[in-house]
Amino acid sequence: MSKTGLYLVGARGQVASTVALGAVCLSRGLMGSTGLLTATKPFQRLGLISWHDLVLGGVDIRPTPLSTVAEAVCRTAGLMPLPEAVRESLASVNEEIDSGTAVGCGRAVRDLAEGESLSDTLSLQETVCRIREKISVFRRRHDLSRVVVVNLASTEPPIHLNPAHAGLDGLEEALVNNDRDLVRASTLYTYAALQEQCAYINFTPSNAALTPALVELAQKRGLPVMGNDGKTGETLVKSALAPLFSIRNLRVLTWQGYNMLGNMDGRVLSHEENKESKRRSKDRGLSRILGYQPHAPVGIDYVPSLGDQKTAWDFIHFEGFLGARMSVQVTWQGFDSILAAPLVLDMARLADLALRRGERGLMPHLACFFKDPQGVRVHGLVDQYRMLMDYATRVNAEKDPDRKVVSLAKEK
Amino acid sequence: MSKTGLYLVGARGQVASTVALGAVCLSRGLMGSTGLLTATKPFQRLGLISWHDLVLGGVDIRPTPLSTVAEAVCRTAGLMPLPEAVRESLASVNEEIDSGTAVGCGRAVRDLAEGESLSDTLSLQETVCRIREKISVFRRRHDLSRVVVVNLASTEPPIHLNPAHAGLDGLEEALVNNDRDLVRASTLYTYAALQEQCAYINFTPSNAALTPALVELAQKRGLPVMGNDGKTGETLVKSALAPLFSIRNLRVLTWQGYNMLGNMDGRVLSHEENKESKRRSKDRGLSRILGYQPHAPVGIDYVPSLGDQKTAWDFIHFEGFLGARMSVQVTWQGFDSILAAPLVLDMARLADLALRRGERGLMPHLACFFKDPQGVRVHGLVDQYRMLMDYATRVNAEKDPDRKVVSLAKEK
Amino acid sequence: MSKTGLYLVGARGQVASTVALGAVCLSRGLMGSTGLLTATKPFQRLGLISWHDLVLGGVDIRPTPLSTVAEAVCRTAGLMPLPEAVRESLASVNEEIDSGTAVGCGRAVRDLAEGESLSDTLSLQETVCRIREKISVFRRRHDLSRVVVVNLASTEPPIHLNPAHAGLDGLEEALVNNDRDLVRASTLYTYAALQEQCAYINFTPSNAALTPALVELAQKRGLPVMGNDGKTGETLVKSALAPLFSIRNLRVLTWQGYNMLGNMDGRVLSHEENKESKRRSKDRGLSRILGYQPHAPVGIDYVPSLGDQKTAWDFIHFEGFLGARMSVQVTWQGFDSILAAPLVLDMARLADLALRRGERGLMPHLACFFKDPQGVRVHGLVDQYRMLMDYATRVNAEKDPDRKVVSLAKEK
Amino acid sequence: MSKTGLYLVGARGQVASTVALGAVCLSRGLMGSTGLLTATKPFQRLGLISWHDLVLGGVDIRPTPLSTVAEAVCRTAGLMPLPEAVRESLASVNEEIDSGTAVGCGRAVRDLAEGESLSDTLSLQETVCRIREKISVFRRRHDLSRVVVVNLASTEPPIHLNPAHAGLDGLEEALVNNDRDLVRASTLYTYAALQEQCAYINFTPSNAALTPALVELAQKRGLPVMGNDGKTGETLVKSALAPLFSIRNLRVLTWQGYNMLGNMDGRVLSHEENKESKRRSKDRGLSRILGYQPHAPVGIDYVPSLGDQKTAWDFIHFEGFLGARMSVQVTWQGFDSILAAPLVLDMARLADLALRRGERGLMPHLACFFKDPQGVRVHGLVDQYRMLMDYATRVNAEKDPDRKVVSLAKEK
Repeated sequence: MSKTGLYLVGARGQVASTVALGAVCLSRGLMGSTGLLTATKPFQRLGLISWHDLVLGGVDIRPTPLSTVAEAVCRTAGLMPLPEAVRESLASVNEEIDSGTAVGCGRAVRDLAEGESLSDTLSLQETVCRIREKISVFRRRHDLSRVVVVNLASTEPPIHLNPAHAGLDGLEEALVNNDRDLVRASTLYTYAALQEQCAYINFTPSNAALTPALVELAQKRGLPVMGNDGKTGETLVKSALAPLFSIRNLRVLTWQGYNMLGNMDGRVLSHEENKESKRRSKDRGLSRILGYQPHAPVGIDYVPSLGDQKTAWDFIHFEGFLGARMSVQVTWQGFDSILAAPLVLDMARLADLALRRGERGLMPHLACFFKDPQGVRVHGLVDQYRMLMDYATRVNAEKDPDRKVVSLAKEK
Repeated sequence: MSKTGLYLVGARGQVASTVALGAVCLSRGLMGSTGLLTATKPFQRLGLISWHDLVLGGVDIRPTPLSTVAEAVCRTAGLMPLPEAVRESLASVNEEIDSGTAVGCGRAVRDLAEGESLSDTLSLQETVCRIREKISVFRRRHDLSRVVVVNLASTEPPIHLNPAHAGLDGLEEALVNNDRDLVRASTLYTYAALQEQCAYINFTPSNAALTPALVELAQKRGLPVMGNDGKTGETLVKSALAPLFSIRNLRVLTWQGYNMLGNMDGRVLSHEENKESKRRSKDRGLSRILGYQPHAPVGIDYVPSLGDQKTAWDFIHFEGFLGARMSVQVTWQGFDSILAAPLVLDMARLADLALRRGERGLMPHLACFFKDPQGVRVHGLVDQYRMLMDYATRVNAEKDPDRKVVSLAKEK
Repeated sequence: MSKTGLYLVGARGQVASTVALGAVCLSRGLMGSTGLLTATKPFQRLGLISWHDLVLGGVDIRPTPLSTVAEAVCRTAGLMPLPEAVRESLASVNEEIDSGTAVGCGRAVRDLAEGESLSDTLSLQETVCRIREKISVFRRRHDLSRVVVVNLASTEPPIHLNPAHAGLDGLEEALVNNDRDLVRASTLYTYAALQEQCAYINFTPSNAALTPALVELAQKRGLPVMGNDGKTGETLVKSALAPLFSIRNLRVLTWQGYNMLGNMDGRVLSHEENKESKRRSKDRGLSRILGYQPHAPVGIDYVPSLGDQKTAWDFIHFEGFLGARMSVQVTWQGFDSILAAPLVLDMARLADLALRRGERGLMPHLACFFKDPQGVRVHGLVDQYRMLMDYATRVNAEKDPDRKVVSLAKEK
Repeated sequence: MSKTGLYLVGARGQVASTVALGAVCLSRGLMGSTGLLTATKPFQRLGLISWHDLVLGGVDIRPTPLSTVAEAVCRTAGLMPLPEAVRESLASVNEEIDSGTAVGCGRAVRDLAEGESLSDTLSLQETVCRIREKISVFRRRHDLSRVVVVNLASTEPPIHLNPAHAGLDGLEEALVNNDRDLVRASTLYTYAALQEQCAYINFTPSNAALTPALVELAQKRGLPVMGNDGKTGETLVKSALAPLFSIRNLRVLTWQGYNMLGNMDGRVLSHEENKESKRRSKDRGLSRILGYQPHAPVGIDYVPSLGDQKTAWDFIHFEGFLGARMSVQVTWQGFDSILAAPLVLDMARLADLALRRGERGLMPHLACFFKDPQGVRVHGLVDQYRMLMDYATRVNAEKDPDRKVVSLAKEK
């Protein structure tokens, strides 16, 4: 079978390292498929690409080798030490990682750039060219039929959307004019990826990655894209729990969320400008599910001692019958990268399928993977899951038109 | 419009008192509809009975007046004292409450029977007759078009189902033979209710209330019934949260649940024989949602100081990608009666609708209200809600066949 | 016996209203002494003033009557409605409350001043005179032998301590010069109280209340004073729990504290300038107990729906043997005013005793009541309690020199 | 300096393996002293034995090598893999471990005995002889000046204390008569240890280990002993937190404690007869601290997925001023063996000191290390710590009589 490239932006970060570790272990049959939705029954007939046929590459601005990062993740999570063979495979993946850019990512991200990175003296267009070249070389070197680019880089400061972002012309003009106020690194990566005919997934909250201009480009070039911000922890719980209040007609008065993060992500988010992006993407879902906006501040604190172990406490204060006030508290303790990595692999497979099927523009059926699914108003987790099941049912029906269509949801 | 009776078994308990308080306040326009699902938009065109047209009555074995119980509920929940007019209305409802029976309910329940109750020396058939007579008098006195009986009595010890419960013949033979080992009080109430042409809701976990024999009777007489065990707290959270683990293909290793209850319900459940019923009804959902049975013991402890404030702590230990173990903790703090009462009112309205529509047998569309919805395998809360929405859509379509059917779920 | 006045600054706030309610109930024998440390055995022989002989008065800038506030506190806390007689007594106390000043208290506090307050056009010295006069009239009207003033007003923005605060001369110069940058309302209250020969307790974190200059004045006039910030919730738990880590030589890495408040106190603290005072007084204890400073941010959030129900969540991450990392989580849910009020009454009695005994300057034996006990380095709760027991032992020994001194701690 | 033996009963268990791992790492300077109280300043002048001079040995009925168990502990706790040199040292310690006995330990413990163990056909006296011989050989082989025996074996079913346990004569008669109903394995170990002139620490709740008869033997032979049940988790938190309620005169209504354990300890405790011992030792402290007995059940549940990670949830419901009810919740998540091991090492050093000083009978100054310190009524953690500090002060004063005695507590 033909091979597909999975090209990671931020390829030496903790999530990317865990993606690589997972891909290596899966293709060697060293672990089960817990955490991978596409390994469940409803996806079995879709012909998703096998772990074997996925080739990893990417860019980063950090020098720490992938296997070092992966080992730290394993230790924190109480996992067995990596076998030698796995360490060697990770070293090979590490060789595939090229130097990236941190244009417009703010001080917090720049401070990470201890490794080689694309010179800031390059114009925006030159930077795009270099990125395209890297992707193109990666594709040719491995003789890849398709490439999916996933943005796993640290959160950028949000960009203020203005008419220049509304259409492709505006964006290309900004590139020509080298107007650095209108773009972030993520903009350049998406633009380059689409020009190189790749599918694109924005796993971060950075809003410069999938502006209307870039979605237009995806449409035009017939490529599938989706974002934003992988849903891995507190927001995941929220999207599962919030419908309870609607279904009982209980009024949520307060949903106070406190997040503690200790990894690189946490460190970058301890900078106000970067944190702003995160807060925005975490904010939206609740009011969409409930139909009104409760008092729902979300705090994010950098707690270095936690490392990769994300801990969140949510306090939900609600009003019930006769106006009585009651509460729920939720403590979520998970390993950030370990929660995120399988989503990246799931979406790589599904984006690869979409590429093969010639889907273009946003992929709303991936909503369940995102905190803030672009273009989708459905935020309840179960309803989002149903969207994905409906998609799978449709794909199957198209493949095998004679077969009676049944809801795949029931088979699970 | 014609009036409907809501006849409560255990009518002076905390849930029933809160039902009465709510009904009084709603019909007088003294409070909003928070907590009532049937007050939300998707139900507006169904023509559900108005609060005004609901007449309350029932039986109990306890003497404490309804308004005293209701006041205690309000105080615990931090609510305003009852206005004089409401107290008076509750006193009228209290007048409607007759003496009941505690046949086969175990020692814990018997100990509550400080008030008048039906003599134990009566045969089972005589007891049934007396109950029928009470319902019949209630119906005539208020000139009711329909009556819905709801079982809110304390949990009985479970009955061991055997061939005698499998069909109506067996049950009637047991009644004739006065075989007290085969029935519980709830059996007699259901039987009497159905003979009196009432709809019947079993809000308790008592499994003697809706045996196959009684469902057969409902079918035969063209009456709607449903149970078991109102879903108000920990199990409610479970049914909202458990799908998250399926949707992420995370493996639940342990779901340890600890429930603390301080009210009468808690006191009765502190008796092993009665607790057994509860544990069983709480048990089923999780494995149905997950598709496998994790280590999931449920503890129930009587903590007198809590009174009506139910507090539950759930610890969920799960395995994710690469086998890493993570956890969620949930603390639920709610007022038991205040959570339960609106469900009773919602179901009274929906059962009244079913009566009018001539539905017979189990009402699977009420699954979202129950811990262990009889005859329904769907345990995820959102999926259960969808069943109810689909029902509402169907009813609307039948009423107004020309109107284009749209999913009501979207309107909410 | 002679009577003692308890003069409250912020006398219509929730804490003060609860103090008044408690004093009324205690002197009428309507409730037990739960929450009052001075009602326990070790204090019985000290000859503390009886609840009967305590006369309440004070000032405020808010108009809402005391009994209205007290009723709200009771309802939130699930208590019985106030008997008529108690409401009447509270109305009498309310009559004793005069208009106060909010000089230098910041916008958040000013916004509360819907009632009458001392004109801002008065000079500082004139304001002091007015306050002195009010206290003096209160003392004469009730023929009081002694007066204890307790500051229960909302938290002021912190004052930057400079040489002008170091000595009495500097302070009095500031008053003469009407230099509003150097004082806050609390400064004027303390100054006036001491000039009027009252004991003074600063129950708030406002650092302008007990500057070195004012402690000097207390020393000079032979009066006892103490502060700062009553210890009622999260910090109380901290001071009990933190010694555990020292006693096991476990290293606290992170002690993240989140506080949610919904009452007036919370509203004022939602203003950054006022919050700053609170944070500072909460900060100090932990590093004193542990002997080093862990990562220990304290968040304070205004959550209106909580009303008087303070909810705090602390996450403690610590390192143990072999460097393993473990954690403790604490959720504290209490009613702010109900936790604070008995401390005010306890300290009123103990300050009255100190007045009688001619104690002057700070009262370190009251350390256990404060988040940041002025002039005391002991922050562990049990060790602070021992200081109080030692004081009680000393007082007893002085009263009855022949009696063999035994540790009172043992009697408890 | 002379060497001291640390002889562990249950030497291949998780706690013992962690003790061995710690001792190896400490003597090689591979880790800091976090978790070790005797490494803090107040203990520095006492001349405690150095880690270097501690020689490990012991008995067990399980075959799994020490280093395998230690590695699992490290992995669960997220620690680095063991260096080769450490693994070798552990292998040497493993060589020192002899086969033990499980007489009277109940079925749950017997099931563990997959390794060699002393034959059940031996009489009690013969078994004692064999144990004595093992200890004696260990002492001679390593030329040890002193030996401290610590019982780390799984919890035995409690023994019903009767006159036969009241004095040494009764015990010796039981041994002569081979009366197996009157003894447990722990009885034999203690008896043998004392006959072999060893100090003895009972780190388990097994009440057969330090009956009055055995304390009498210790007195008679001039040997120090102490127990029972190392205080490592929920009870530790309780002993720190409970004094808060006394110091505020808050009335604890309910202290509901749920413990989840997944290791061998948990498995053994899932047997009712063994659990009973644990419950008893956990029970006592609270009422001693509070001065009354609240509703305070303690649950212990075996949750296999947790492994060595002990998780406990405590719910404390208390009454404050005006009768208002409030609550605290505590979640404790720690690694059982890692919390326990340093206590064993601390007590080994302190028992060694007591041996050198000729102390005899119980060591009340070790109270802070035990859930149920034998012969000590002080249960508050800080007060227990003070007992230890007072002891250290006394020892120092005796060593250096001219030196001015100061409280060591202050130096910390």
